[in-house]
Amino acid sequence: MTAPFDFAPLLAPGTPAPAAKWNGFPKYNFVGGHNDADNVPVEALVEAATTVLRREGPTLATYGLNSGPLGYRPLREFLSKKLKGHAGIECTPDEILITSGSLQGLDLVNTLLLGKGDTILIEKETYGGALTRLAKFGVNIVGIPLDDDGMRMDALKSTLAELKARGVTPKYIYTIPTVQNPTGSIMPVERRKEMIALAREYKTMIFEDECYSDLVWSGKRPPSIHSLAGGEGVIFVGSFSKSIAPALRVGYIVAKWGILARILGLKQDAGSGALEQMVLAEFCTRHFANHVPKLNKTLSHKLQVLREALAEQFGTAAEFGDPPGGIYLWVKLPDNVDTLKLFQAAQAAGVALNPGPEWSTDKAYARSRLRLCFANPDPATIKKGVEVLADVCRREFGVPLRSSNVEKR
Amino acid sequence: MTAPFDFAPLLAPGTPAPAAKWNGFPKYNFVGGHNDADNVPVEALVEAATTVLRREGPTLATYGLNSGPLGYRPLREFLSKKLKGHAGIECTPDEILITSGSLQGLDLVNTLLLGKGDTILIEKETYGGALTRLAKFGVNIVGIPLDDDGMRMDALKSTLAELKARGVTPKYIYTIPTVQNPTGSIMPVERRKEMIALAREYKTMIFEDECYSDLVWSGKRPPSIHSLAGGEGVIFVGSFSKSIAPALRVGYIVAKWGILARILGLKQDAGSGALEQMVLAEFCTRHFANHVPKLNKTLSHKLQVLREALAEQFGTAAEFGDPPGGIYLWVKLPDNVDTLKLFQAAQAAGVALNPGPEWSTDKAYARSRLRLCFANPDPATIKKGVEVLADVCRREFGVPLRSSNVEKR
Repeated sequence: MTAPFDFAPLLAPGTPAPAAKWNGFPKYNFVGGHNDADNVPVEALVEAATTVLRREGPTLATYGLNSGPLGYRPLREFLSKKLKGHAGIECTPDEILITSGSLQGLDLVNTLLLGKGDTILIEKETYGGALTRLAKFGVNIVGIPLDDDGMRMDALKSTLAELKARGVTPKYIYTIPTVQNPTGSIMPVERRKEMIALAREYKTMIFEDECYSDLVWSGKRPPSIHSLAGGEGVIFVGSFSKSIAPALRVGYIVAKWGILARILGLKQDAGSGALEQMVLAEFCTRHFANHVPKLNKTLSHKLQVLREALAEQFGTAAEFGDPPGGIYLWVKLPDNVDTLKLFQAAQAAGVALNPGPEWSTDKAYARSRLRLCFANPDPATIKKGVEVLADVCRREFGVPLRSSNVEKR
Repeated sequence: MTAPFDFAPLLAPGTPAPAAKWNGFPKYNFVGGHNDADNVPVEALVEAATTVLRREGPTLATYGLNSGPLGYRPLREFLSKKLKGHAGIECTPDEILITSGSLQGLDLVNTLLLGKGDTILIEKETYGGALTRLAKFGVNIVGIPLDDDGMRMDALKSTLAELKARGVTPKYIYTIPTVQNPTGSIMPVERRKEMIALAREYKTMIFEDECYSDLVWSGKRPPSIHSLAGGEGVIFVGSFSKSIAPALRVGYIVAKWGILARILGLKQDAGSGALEQMVLAEFCTRHFANHVPKLNKTLSHKLQVLREALAEQFGTAAEFGDPPGGIYLWVKLPDNVDTLKLFQAAQAAGVALNPGPEWSTDKAYARSRLRLCFANPDPATIKKGVEVLADVCRREFGVPLRSSNVEKR
């Protein structure tokens, strides 16, 4: 009975390659949305779990607890208040759907709207995971360039006009307006209003991804596009991954009931994990407002450590800004550096990074760019990792010529 | 900015209908995999959450904790031992993938193997959720009849031969051999071996769903098909929904690494909820072996309450067996009863049930059958619910003529 069975002839066409065995995290981990381990509020989570389980534990016996398929109601009630104060969003708890991470939100919205051959608009530099997901739908991905204030409205307008001339209505404009991934920009309110007007004019929707919007050092951010549009024609996704802990896998979609009901009709998973929702609701109601500024203090410090390390190790060879929030820095290296090749060489040296072409619709433009996430490694590891990266880069591409003011040849 | 936006022109073709607003659970809830609320081990879960968070809470800052994409390693270690003792499965923790409920397991396996027009074999009476999922893939669903020992091997053999004559290799044989849903049968070991031999002969896989296998009153069950096949050509899914709590949404896939690596390549959700996995691992390692017999005692009692209530209220009009485990009873009413219509009328009276045609590939055969889940309602609610159901059935279909030995006209 135990002779090997060859399942290959049974695979569906186009099945992706098998996953590699996991060998632990890289030594210098500058990828992924990992967060600062010391800021996981362990004792408060223990307290929240104890309280909520003693109060409502038996409801775990029913799918959806006693809250129905939108998710644990006290968490939606917390979000309804938090989103009003934070992002200006006026929504009831019944206009919020809890998802298994904001990734499930992306999948649900894409499934709702996208068919093969459809067109979507997206920031030219954007979240790599959004691009890989869109590729699976076989859609036409049109990148809109950014400046320091986020997506450029002149470029959006001309692209929409060109598409209209060809009879194409894009399914949506995907934007990360508040701490853009990877550039870190925050779109000013006027530009947000322009985007809404353009979306209306061209009868397309806006898909607003706010996964990083809690991580703004100043604590201040413009109202969300969803709020400025009164919720009409905008689907908003958010997450607790960046503000509390990514392993929890809790995100949410905010939309008017008409469209949320459609999304809910596609969510056939019998609910997202209830214990996480219960513990988050209990924790956030009491501690979210105090927790986030503390986390931001750590993150903004780590950003400065990364920036100083890059300046020290790469000198003028690395160009980067000083983002007002987030967990990543978008870095430009000299034109001769191919970050896809750098990625391979760095990996062998224990340094993980996101090569620019995976984070952009314009592979040539992003060729010598890379994204470095700074939230997870401690400051000493950040410094050492950048030193190792500079060594690898010098060996492979001859830059930086000087590190720590010492010539390296 | 707040004029309503008409998103209808942007929807993908074939989008399912919007979900209805949730109005709470029905008064007499005989549907779904809900469980017994009093058996949720609240204090032990509090203790498990406290212990595991204090020990490993900071690892929540990284996707996949420190365990990688297969899921929390201590949970996979627990499962590896539990499955060996319980189901005879020899597998390492790296041949187990933790999923967001076994439903995600179904989705992943279907995505791996199924394309439009493919053929799959399934028990003629089966899990309704599997049927609705398969319908979305546009596959040819061939039902194989059951008897008291589960799927009939003579029927399986002749169907495989007929398909082969037409050049068709089914992608898999889907089976729930241990506490079949909805019939409750347990397939004997010899029949399991026959199925493996037939699958091998016809070069198809077996998809073994064991979601209910912990709920066997005697605590004894035959080795799993996966174990009898040495894991070759078999994908196994299981769940903690029925043994601990459904709202947790934790299931698992067991398969040889070659095929599990393919499945893992499709799991693009950045991991399943970590807190649930951590708490389950901590709880199960200490308490699973004692918890399950206690739960089974409650469930087997509720089953007898349901059987007695049906006998009292429906008399000879209701036919049903005495399943050796599970959370549901498969009931045959007189031929003139259309359970799709009964479902509607019962719903209006506060009674939720699964109409047979939704739980079978043969709608005519299942027309007067229904599935009643008994795990969630308390004994008094079971009794009252069956009484209300009998009243509704009598009003709509003229049966049962007698209830509690009193003639009703």
